[in-house]
Amino acid sequence: MLPHHYPSKLLEQAINAFARLPGIGYKTALRLVLYLLRQDKETNEEFGNAIIRLRQEIKYCRICHNISDHDLCPVCADPLRDHSQLCVVENIRDVMAIENTGQYKGLYHVLGGIISPMDGIGPNDINIQSLEKKVANNTIQEVILALSPTLEGDTTNYYIFKRLSRYAVNMSILARGVSIGDELEYTDEITLARSLINRVSYEQSISVRQPG
Amino acid sequence: MLPHHYPSKLLEQAINAFARLPGIGYKTALRLVLYLLRQDKETNEEFGNAIIRLRQEIKYCRICHNISDHDLCPVCADPLRDHSQLCVVENIRDVMAIENTGQYKGLYHVLGGIISPMDGIGPNDINIQSLEKKVANNTIQEVILALSPTLEGDTTNYYIFKRLSRYAVNMSILARGVSIGDELEYTDEITLARSLINRVSYEQSISVRQPG
Repeated sequence: MLPHHYPSKLLEQAINAFARLPGIGYKTALRLVLYLLRQDKETNEEFGNAIIRLRQEIKYCRICHNISDHDLCPVCADPLRDHSQLCVVENIRDVMAIENTGQYKGLYHVLGGIISPMDGIGPNDINIQSLEKKVANNTIQEVILALSPTLEGDTTNYYIFKRLSRYAVNMSILARGVSIGDELEYTDEITLARSLINRVSYEQSISVRQPG
Repeated sequence: MLPHHYPSKLLEQAINAFARLPGIGYKTALRLVLYLLRQDKETNEEFGNAIIRLRQEIKYCRICHNISDHDLCPVCADPLRDHSQLCVVENIRDVMAIENTGQYKGLYHVLGGIISPMDGIGPNDINIQSLEKKVANNTIQEVILALSPTLEGDTTNYYIFKRLSRYAVNMSILARGVSIGDELEYTDEITLARSLINRVSYEQSISVRQPG
């Protein structure tokens, strides 16, 4: 229910701006705006400027297409990372998720989407051309396909696999299996079957370090 | 879980700004910031500026303490409203809620809080002095106490009632009773007892217009 009367135009503008965000309704927007009103001026200006500068100044890494403050993102610019490994992900959120595991020391390639005919997104709408160029340069030894195990993710994985198969590059895909903490009896059959087929030696499994 | 690595300082600032808001965790903040990145520049600047201007330019009505763009809020400045009726509320959200019913044509008085010894808020921390001044001026005929039916709300109601009782002013309080749409059997006993004691004539009850 939208209110008929706002006591202030400024308030109305701020509420509408928040309410336009995904998952934020009018009541939450009102609550957030009233919270901002109680904050001191400086914190508020910082918030507003962070939003404005975000869109004005942010860059995308010219190698991996990840968000960056500079021409090169910290990962691509790091000489200590393994530049022969390339992890293909859908978006920057996936990069952050993988970085947080602390288990990956190679580079990334952010597609910026996945192939989804339903949404009208084809191979040319995402960063596949630049991926092929990297692989064609012969500096990459392994491409790790790390897209979500959905219909669209699998389609995109397969498309990339077919397209890159003429190059001498190893292609791997994230292991699919039972999530840690899941109850076996509630795991769906496909996942359970996959994790059975792709079982690993116990010795190998305990050698994996826990994410720090 | 906070991430160890952000690909960009700008991104980190924006995420932290959002994550500081109440009810918004790190994951939601990230989602919102990535959404903002996909918005066009102008919409983003509008958003940022709405937040900055909100705190810089907003005023409080010098009569009712409601939020306002000017010295007087639209309600207090409206000559068609009943200036002899005064509805005492806790905050601006309550003003908006009551305005949305379309049933009230008098003025408001925003306390800006309620008496709450637990939180260290006493009568002098909220706008009670200015309320007394208004009543002492003899222009008010009815004071409607419209605070939430909580321990703190009731305490504040009683305090105001005692403080204003030496003036010739009618004091009323919001009816407490069964919420419309509630099942009787699930209503708590105190509410049910109240609504039984304060029952109104059927004729009066059907004469109340539905909120538009």
